[in-house]
Amino acid sequence: MKVNGNDYRTVWMEGSTVCFIEQNLLPFEFRIYRSDNYLETSKAIKSMKIRGAGAIGAAAGFAMAQAFAEAPENELQEFVYRAKQSIYTTRPTARNLYYAVDRVFNKALNSIDPQREALKEAHKIAEEDALSSLRIGKFGEELIQDKSRILTHCNAGWLAFVDHGTALSPVYNAFHHGKDVFVYVDETKPRGQGAKLTAWELQQVGIPYKIIPDNAAAHLMSLGQIDFVIVGADRIAVNGDVANKIGTLSRAIAAREYNIPFYVAAPLSTFDIDCIQGSDIIIEERPQEEVLFTSGITINGKLTSVLSSAPGSSAYNPAFDITPAKFITAIITDKGIIQPDESAIRDITRQ
Amino acid sequence: MKVNGNDYRTVWMEGSTVCFIEQNLLPFEFRIYRSDNYLETSKAIKSMKIRGAGAIGAAAGFAMAQAFAEAPENELQEFVYRAKQSIYTTRPTARNLYYAVDRVFNKALNSIDPQREALKEAHKIAEEDALSSLRIGKFGEELIQDKSRILTHCNAGWLAFVDHGTALSPVYNAFHHGKDVFVYVDETKPRGQGAKLTAWELQQVGIPYKIIPDNAAAHLMSLGQIDFVIVGADRIAVNGDVANKIGTLSRAIAAREYNIPFYVAAPLSTFDIDCIQGSDIIIEERPQEEVLFTSGITINGKLTSVLSSAPGSSAYNPAFDITPAKFITAIITDKGIIQPDESAIRDITRQ
Repeated sequence: MKVNGNDYRTVWMEGSTVCFIEQNLLPFEFRIYRSDNYLETSKAIKSMKIRGAGAIGAAAGFAMAQAFAEAPENELQEFVYRAKQSIYTTRPTARNLYYAVDRVFNKALNSIDPQREALKEAHKIAEEDALSSLRIGKFGEELIQDKSRILTHCNAGWLAFVDHGTALSPVYNAFHHGKDVFVYVDETKPRGQGAKLTAWELQQVGIPYKIIPDNAAAHLMSLGQIDFVIVGADRIAVNGDVANKIGTLSRAIAAREYNIPFYVAAPLSTFDIDCIQGSDIIIEERPQEEVLFTSGITINGKLTSVLSSAPGSSAYNPAFDITPAKFITAIITDKGIIQPDESAIRDITRQ
Repeated sequence: MKVNGNDYRTVWMEGSTVCFIEQNLLPFEFRIYRSDNYLETSKAIKSMKIRGAGAIGAAAGFAMAQAFAEAPENELQEFVYRAKQSIYTTRPTARNLYYAVDRVFNKALNSIDPQREALKEAHKIAEEDALSSLRIGKFGEELIQDKSRILTHCNAGWLAFVDHGTALSPVYNAFHHGKDVFVYVDETKPRGQGAKLTAWELQQVGIPYKIIPDNAAAHLMSLGQIDFVIVGADRIAVNGDVANKIGTLSRAIAAREYNIPFYVAAPLSTFDIDCIQGSDIIIEERPQEEVLFTSGITINGKLTSVLSSAPGSSAYNPAFDITPAKFITAIITDKGIIQPDESAIRDITRQ
């Protein structure tokens, strides 16, 4: 996608360096972060310098490739195994992370040239991610009528993937094909990825939008001002239950109350066929400071964090919730649109 | 209620000066604001230096009494009529505001000593507000079991009324009678009255609580971690539909999904028997800056507002939503607990 007229991906590799758009600084500053080793890349994933299902996956694949490159020759196996376990722990809910790390690890470990093979596989994963986002955009666009008012939660745009995005990819397609679309962007507290990242993305493309407080989503639905909801996913169980950013569940429950279609967009790499149901998914709990403090820029343009809660309070900060399949109208994948049920999911992931 | 060991009400009058706790500064600074004339008091209501259903009502009644005192002798009627219209416009959704202004106006206008009568009536309204909150606490406590985990939204504690509060009044009673209670406090964006005011209130009393992002409420319900929800109300229609802080609706929809009791606590002065249904209630739309910016204190303790959204974005900021009666388990009033239906509401308001 273009930023200030230049083409960018969210994450890529130059030689042995992982490069990515530093998302903690957006929308206030656009900067490329360069990480020279797998531990630094892991830390960047954990601290959400890079975030979003697909971008995490690609970055984790690159981190695994870095680990192969860094491993001492006589203890490669031990080193990369420890590295794999360490990368696993950065964001426990993200399916794409495990998917990418395992793919690079398994492909490279017993090959003739592990370093080269790991790097090749990591690049391949990133390419596939961009391509599957593009396909999701094409399939999903069919669902978007002219003059649609769309609600989205968090950021499942191109910043969350290597390129194009999932939830926003069909919206971008519809817009580029001349359809009139308007996006209501949930602020998505505590970190505000909607107000910060999705708003910034839509602004770059020129799609009209308004930020709404998370609390206003059901109100807009009750007034008939939302035509459909579209969100991404961090992990999808084989029964169609979806783990996604905290707050997704309440949008899904309200959408059903008002008969509003609720779509989930995700590539097949997000499906976890070993996971029977949503309640088996581990929900990452993040630091309470993310709830108690809010970051933004002062009138002098300085990025600052303010305590926006009563001093001395504690907070509970689950990063994701589980939306049961029964609330989901359809899942838009890179192989087509499916119903959120086991037979459809087993079929499409078997292909 | 006690603040740092001293007894306070939220709003009171000393001579011709309206005094109130300056709520925009809480929880970071505790300061009393003194307003010497009705226009200044109106501005304080509009800018939410004083806020909350009952506190707005009492302040508006006092403002009306100030207007009577300020009116030139030869044009009293014109002056107080204009003042009444002007106070009306400060917070259009708040039922208690109209109730208080009308009561003071009607009682004083044709009396022998309008100034004295207005002041007397305004004081009476404030007294009644404190007393009805106390009664709500007694009635509501019956609903609270030992070891209850309670979810509340926004601030309907004593800061929102003259004393005691509505939604929190039963919780205070339960706690003082030795019941084990735990409160999950919705942050309540965009202004954060939960994280800022409710958290501060609970802390003063010593009730254990945790702040949660608004997005996490449905997740907690889905995990069976909420025993009941209790909220206040800004206006209640005769069919039992409730206008309350934006976000109330989504909690109510989710509570029904998980069979969790959803209680509304409000004095009879909040009921608008001229209002047939919730959709007739005018929803106040507030400045978009409340969504785009977040206030808090920096590490140096300085109260600051930061831009917490993508620069150049616009936002939609409805302050309230309408929760249909069908989602409400019961309404706790100062005359007893009732079902949210027309016959019960007509009965109790006729008494």
